[in-house]
Amino acid sequence: MTALRQASKVVCIGRNYADHITELNNSRPKQPFFFLKPPSSILPPGNGPVIQPKGVDLHYEVELALIIGKQVKDLDASDEKGALDAIESYALSIDMTARNIQNEAKKKGLPWDISKGFDTFLPMSKTIAKALIPDPHKIELYLTVNDEVRQNDSTELMLFKIPRVLSDISKVMTLEPGDIVITGTPKGVGPVVPGDIMRAGIRINGKELEDAKIEIG
Amino acid sequence: MTALRQASKVVCIGRNYADHITELNNSRPKQPFFFLKPPSSILPPGNGPVIQPKGVDLHYEVELALIIGKQVKDLDASDEKGALDAIESYALSIDMTARNIQNEAKKKGLPWDISKGFDTFLPMSKTIAKALIPDPHKIELYLTVNDEVRQNDSTELMLFKIPRVLSDISKVMTLEPGDIVITGTPKGVGPVVPGDIMRAGIRINGKELEDAKIEIG
Ligand SMILES: [Mg+2]
Ligand SMILES: [Mg+2]
Ligand SMILES: [Mg+2]
Repeated sequence: MTALRQASKVVCIGRNYADHITELNNSRPKQPFFFLKPPSSILPPGNGPVIQPKGVDLHYEVELALIIGKQVKDLDASDEKGALDAIESYALSIDMTARNIQNEAKKKGLPWDISKGFDTFLPMSKTIAKALIPDPHKIELYLTVNDEVRQNDSTELMLFKIPRVLSDISKVMTLEPGDIVITGTPKGVGPVVPGDIMRAGIRINGKELEDAKIEIG
Repeated sequence: MTALRQASKVVCIGRNYADHITELNNSRPKQPFFFLKPPSSILPPGNGPVIQPKGVDLHYEVELALIIGKQVKDLDASDEKGALDAIESYALSIDMTARNIQNEAKKKGLPWDISKGFDTFLPMSKTIAKALIPDPHKIELYLTVNDEVRQNDSTELMLFKIPRVLSDISKVMTLEPGDIVITGTPKGVGPVVPGDIMRAGIRINGKELEDAKIEIG
């Protein structure tokens, strides 16, 4: 699964679920915005725990990841077929965030990349065959910490759907095969500390998707 | 030269020359900060002009680029030999920036990645053999627009030298062979419009380094 780390970039959508925007006191974007995580932050399944850097307030954000299968440039936002054709497979991911560093960066108008980019800050599941997710806007994402449910919402709550998201990204930066797009997190983000166990997964019509499971310290 | 685009990440230092900080009314950082550009933004020599996106106020920033030759993790800031050993070769680069988008992002506390990440926003020279630059802190970077000198300063003006910069980055994100680090821009940044010709280069003891030359529309 280290093939995931061959991505030439990981593009991350911010504020794509209304209730998550409210919980962080953020304003609702008029258009999708995005940032990068370095491929060095990817933590493939079975590669050990998330490392908490010293002095860092570590938050989880469960997100659906798209693995891109072809070059995408200037995609039209109305081209739903083009968007879905560009997806080779899916994965589940946790966009780990150094929240205190991010908050300070936001206050000072500085880049987010340090707060999002530490090694191990992107735990991922196995890749999920495309056929297992007939409609990426109708799946349930969940995340538990020490078996308490913290996040559990449907991707139908995305403010900007996948075609719009891929269109906006591809008008700025060409997507390449192997690139990863993570699509934003629903409400319920919060802190974890060393020793906590995060479990995350995807349910479709109430049924657990085995390949989507993440279990990590 | 498209090997440059095989980089798994491009890490960019901000505000690393005092006079450049003053000209943009920014505050001086207490420690190096950095952000990412996607490898898709790299424009290798001879690959055509910089594309100005619609509505974008396009600025140049000439910068010395380091091409990393080995994995670097948790480098000690005092390890000058380790830092220089980690460099495989150099290049000259222009960190093209959508200044209006960046200014809006800074005001709103949003990520810089869109403003820095458009396709063609990182023109680079050929790679420069390491032996041609005996001391990377004693070279002169210059950039002209339509043959008028806009930037021309020595890298000895860097606030944070290369060992400190590589140390700080490597304590957040592991550097991999092929990764590119751009080290900040001296004063003199400004706008270009379609039709302008940018020329940039490196002089050592007044002598032009042929492989460092960039000439681009
Ligand atoms: Mg996120
Ligand atoms: Mg690669
Ligand atoms: Mg710069």
